Amino acid sequence: LQTRLPAVGTTIFTRMSQLAAEHGAVNLGQGFPDFDCDPALVELVSEAMRAGHNQYPPMTGAAPLRLAIAAKIASLYGHQYDANTEITVTAGATEALTTAILCCVHPGDEVIVIEPAYDSYLPAIALAGGVPVRVAMELGQHGYSVPWARIAAAVTGKTRLIVINTPHNPTGTILRTADIAALAEIVRGTDIMLLSDEVYEHMVYDGVRHESLCRHPELAARSFIVSSFGKTYHVTGWKVGYVAAPAALTAEFRKVHQYNVFSVNTPMQHGLASHMASPQPYLELPAFYQRKRDLFRAGLAGSRFTLLPADGTYFQCVRYDAISHDKEAQFAQWLTSEIKVAAIPVSAFYAEGQESGVVRFCFAKQDATLELALARLRAV
Amino acid sequence: LQTRLPAVGTTIFTRMSQLAAEHGAVNLGQGFPDFDCDPALVELVSEAMRAGHNQYPPMTGAAPLRLAIAAKIASLYGHQYDANTEITVTAGATEALTTAILCCVHPGDEVIVIEPAYDSYLPAIALAGGVPVRVAMELGQHGYSVPWARIAAAVTGKTRLIVINTPHNPTGTILRTADIAALAEIVRGTDIMLLSDEVYEHMVYDGVRHESLCRHPELAARSFIVSSFGKTYHVTGWKVGYVAAPAALTAEFRKVHQYNVFSVNTPMQHGLASHMASPQPYLELPAFYQRKRDLFRAGLAGSRFTLLPADGTYFQCVRYDAISHDKEAQFAQWLTSEIKVAAIPVSAFYAEGQESGVVRFCFAKQDATLELALARLRAV
Ligand SMILES: CSCCC(=O)C(=O)O
Ligand SMILES: CSCCC(=O)C(=O)O
Repeated sequence: LQTRLPAVGTTIFTRMSQLAAEHGAVNLGQGFPDFDCDPALVELVSEAMRAGHNQYPPMTGAAPLRLAIAAKIASLYGHQYDANTEITVTAGATEALTTAILCCVHPGDEVIVIEPAYDSYLPAIALAGGVPVRVAMELGQHGYSVPWARIAAAVTGKTRLIVINTPHNPTGTILRTADIAALAEIVRGTDIMLLSDEVYEHMVYDGVRHESLCRHPELAARSFIVSSFGKTYHVTGWKVGYVAAPAALTAEFRKVHQYNVFSVNTPMQHGLASHMASPQPYLELPAFYQRKRDLFRAGLAGSRFTLLPADGTYFQCVRYDAISHDKEAQFAQWLTSEIKVAAIPVSAFYAEGQESGVVRFCFAKQDATLELALARLRAV
Repeated sequence: LQTRLPAVGTTIFTRMSQLAAEHGAVNLGQGFPDFDCDPALVELVSEAMRAGHNQYPPMTGAAPLRLAIAAKIASLYGHQYDANTEITVTAGATEALTTAILCCVHPGDEVIVIEPAYDSYLPAIALAGGVPVRVAMELGQHGYSVPWARIAAAVTGKTRLIVINTPHNPTGTILRTADIAALAEIVRGTDIMLLSDEVYEHMVYDGVRHESLCRHPELAARSFIVSSFGKTYHVTGWKVGYVAAPAALTAEFRKVHQYNVFSVNTPMQHGLASHMASPQPYLELPAFYQRKRDLFRAGLAGSRFTLLPADGTYFQCVRYDAISHDKEAQFAQWLTSEIKVAAIPVSAFYAEGQESGVVRFCFAKQDATLELALARLRAV
């Protein structure tokens, strides 16, 4: 059997979680919380099921959830999406990303991807028959940054789409207004579309604001903006996300979405919609995770790991050159099996496995979990 | 914006459901029950959420559910799939179908589709860059049948996949052992794969047995077999399905699945796995729906509708030439707006809208709903 994705293996997240389980390691690899969601949210979903919300929802998403999403975006970012024609509920952010790529990338079209990149972008581009054009972030004294001049240089007449991710997984980098201006300059006058992965939108620290592309009308007009309920509400296993895009893009997105998954779990949608009546959970999220980030960083200060900046997401990247010159995958395995703390090698986010001597820890964990991991990491 | 599926519109199911709502019609169009699932199943999902099953499940599916699926298949059809390497839980059957097509159909590959066909097959083939080869079922005195000689004639060196659907939506036809033998004859000695849509596997009537392709080792070895929990457990909105396939095919399927949706709702998977400890629900399903089918057919006997056979699924197709010579879409609209009973025009299941003077009713409804619809239909 010759398939469309012959080279693909099991994701690094699955493999490191398995390795962590085998070695009884603290799992700071795969990005998911080890604490539970608000019990009130569970009860709202249970009530939705008991109320009979168990049959097909609208293909576009349950109306109350689309309205709640549009209201949230309007209040946080000042952009008014039409809930009927511009918001679509998806089977998690992964489906949103893949569906967006399948809908607009034609065979031979070029798609610019900034590496390190979340590992679903490139396989989705391959499925669409697109040609990925990879541009690496620069890693300097002040952490990672996006080399806009090199992205500008990578644009050709065949460029169909640029994939953006802010806050950025795995580096924790966030785009600033200067980045947005550079991006706007690149796409102005072209018909290049943008796919903006903003699943960590509510995890931006130190009072900095999240530059959702929808804050910038010139960019919003050509963007699919993707977010996730799993990350925001501590329910990564519920697989509910959404895409916000202008009506013309949404119409095309839905053509693929309706034949990819048709629709998304009804009771979860109703439960989340009711829960969103209060903005408190996502308004409190930055402070909640900033405290964990600070706890984790303080715990590693003075250790042999070098902390890189962590402005957003629930990930902390570290250099380990004071400890080892092993390749990242090897170092992450050693950390997992010997030190009993699992991490993700950042090389897994590069198509060609570029090595920078950096691994990623997830700090979306209970304080006790973080303390246990920190004690082990400090002992290295 | 030029997209990959420019010609696609909103599905007929969504459109007819909307029309039914507008006209206050009894909705016998879109296939979903108007009654609820077993309350015990709802409680099992609630318990799973309360027990903290809210984070990412394994990409392949929660282990207890994969085991339950393999056990069910073994007991019903005598085929032993390995739960780890041959069963994958999907975001509904639609995702399973589209992912299977995306994984094995290369640009230019031919895919044989038997019309009338469920409306997601062709768009999925288009997304993969495949070339659909459509063969129409024959509609004779005894209802619809598959013209195997014409399918054999449609096979070329480029044929990658044949899509089978039994019990068949919309016609209610089921494949018999003679059909299976004809299919086996066609693929023997080729490397053609089979995609078998068996979402109505538990809705086969009159004591006839469901010829799952997995009963036939020669065919099972080259088949992706797709089923759905939504249909079997009256929870079409939960969006949980699965694909069973030999390990080599499953490995390739998962490469696409993991980057299409990554994984499937965790609490639903745990709730369904617990519920499957008892086979009673699916063992009782044929009798449950056969009674509704018989009620519906008895109600239309003597009316101006001509009943076609209904051996499986929860659909009843009828001819209406004694009432009108309108096109099917027009007749279905008239039924909905004037008679206040929504139906699906079977022409919607043909790429070129072939007319046969047949519409489809869904009888997965409460008896009272069926009686109300029947009274209206008899008055035509
Ligand atoms: C879909 S599993 C990966 C979770 C995640 O987003 C990450 O760890 O980067
Ligand atoms: C996914 S909506 C369509 C439901 C269905 O299977 C049908 O009505 O044929």
